[in-house]
Amino acid sequence: MSMRRVRTVAALRTAVAAFRARGESVAFVPTMGAIHDGHLSLVTRARKSADRVVASIFVNPLQFGPREDHSRYPRPIARDRAAFARAGVDLLWEPHVADVYPTGDRTRVVVEGLSGVLEGASRPGHFVGVTTVVTRLLHAVQPDVLWLGQKDAQQAIILERMCADLLMPVRVRRGATVREADGLAMSSRNAYLAADERAQAVALSQGLAVARAKLRYGERGAAKLIAAVRGVWRHFPLVREDSIHVVDPVTLAPLRRVGAHALIVVAARVGPARLIDNLEWRGR
Amino acid sequence: MSMRRVRTVAALRTAVAAFRARGESVAFVPTMGAIHDGHLSLVTRARKSADRVVASIFVNPLQFGPREDHSRYPRPIARDRAAFARAGVDLLWEPHVADVYPTGDRTRVVVEGLSGVLEGASRPGHFVGVTTVVTRLLHAVQPDVLWLGQKDAQQAIILERMCADLLMPVRVRRGATVREADGLAMSSRNAYLAADERAQAVALSQGLAVARAKLRYGERGAAKLIAAVRGVWRHFPLVREDSIHVVDPVTLAPLRRVGAHALIVVAARVGPARLIDNLEWRGR
Repeated sequence: MSMRRVRTVAALRTAVAAFRARGESVAFVPTMGAIHDGHLSLVTRARKSADRVVASIFVNPLQFGPREDHSRYPRPIARDRAAFARAGVDLLWEPHVADVYPTGDRTRVVVEGLSGVLEGASRPGHFVGVTTVVTRLLHAVQPDVLWLGQKDAQQAIILERMCADLLMPVRVRRGATVREADGLAMSSRNAYLAADERAQAVALSQGLAVARAKLRYGERGAAKLIAAVRGVWRHFPLVREDSIHVVDPVTLAPLRRVGAHALIVVAARVGPARLIDNLEWRGR
Repeated sequence: MSMRRVRTVAALRTAVAAFRARGESVAFVPTMGAIHDGHLSLVTRARKSADRVVASIFVNPLQFGPREDHSRYPRPIARDRAAFARAGVDLLWEPHVADVYPTGDRTRVVVEGLSGVLEGASRPGHFVGVTTVVTRLLHAVQPDVLWLGQKDAQQAIILERMCADLLMPVRVRRGATVREADGLAMSSRNAYLAADERAQAVALSQGLAVARAKLRYGERGAAKLIAAVRGVWRHFPLVREDSIHVVDPVTLAPLRRVGAHALIVVAARVGPARLIDNLEWRGR
């Protein structure tokens, strides 16, 4: 099994058409590279969901703000290719910016309401960049199944909404967050952390673990749950709170009390990195 | 040859999949119904461009402003079906609003810059409604070729831009404006005209004909061309100017002087109707 690599949309379509000509179904795992076990677990699940797995590596400039880390975002391309090949990716698409954003490009896709809150409030324009690029990637690949990571919960919620609203002919699936041994959610941005910062980054998952314990013991007040996360974070001086929200997992509306379902999303700055994590709660 | 009719996206996809299973290509003609010879000429061209023709009738609420004619837009559905069947449409999709706009819908597609000018300046939100619905129709039908009418020139330009930008796997083709014997561009909204208004509605095409004559004789100044149209319209008291613009046919930027290519777009109110027409000029 060897992995093919393509750059242009035309080459991608030809390669996917060859799968289709053999009657094979296609799953798609879009990434920005800097591949870690979270991405690879999506590839593993994608392999079980379809005959062929297409992955993409594209550090999408449109989803980075002017003061964000687009230029220094890690791009270990040789290691990424090897990891994808080992994980069983059949076709790796590595477009250039001009392949995804044609000259004179003016078209944007926006999921109103969901894109300006939570992460979107901290990162103006971020989710318009995500929905705009994923629409293009989906049109280029035309997969049967799209795989997204639960680590970026708001992104997954927005993209599920987008695919449903736009009648896109694709099933959207989520893969669970993959964690380091101490609980830190795997993220390409963990690479930014110095050793002491890395040690304290565990605060995000530990805060959520305490919130989950409170939920299990019957706590339903959002303010109490947020205070519980904050109480954990107090012990980690290198972790600066960015936001902690308890929201409805479909509408992202803030909840005062947790009902059957809730999503707790947290963001914190740890050294040069902005890290996120979340906890999805489904009653008992 | 009998025409099939479907309502739901699922039924549409099943019917299109049957074409695909036989290796047949698909052309798509989206309409708002109130079918006239302009629509039917698109069907005729569509038949030559692909093995099968899918048409849709959907009076898209999102592209009408709050004070526009959505509720009174003509809906002669029995006549429309008969006309499409005679013209050789293979599959007619007649979705309900809920088939195109799922519950909780929040997703919009916008072609920035092009959507707020000309017609878009007179009709705020109109083109976002058009691009949002056509994206959905394209995802539902997944045609090889999309047919658009030149009568709605700005709409065609915006949709071509959108399909290119979003890497949509579809070819976009334009069909020429079909006219009544006196030159009036065929439009569903012509049905709103009383007899005297109908007689004077010829002002739009006559104004453009005079502009074309001026261009042929070497006039290149936009202000002069606009004055020429206005000079014609002065003789038609039931025709109230809404706008006359000379623009670049790709960027829609206003031109002071006509170069190799230009688009003259006009809009006027005639009785209860707002009518549009245009002239595309391709130097020699």
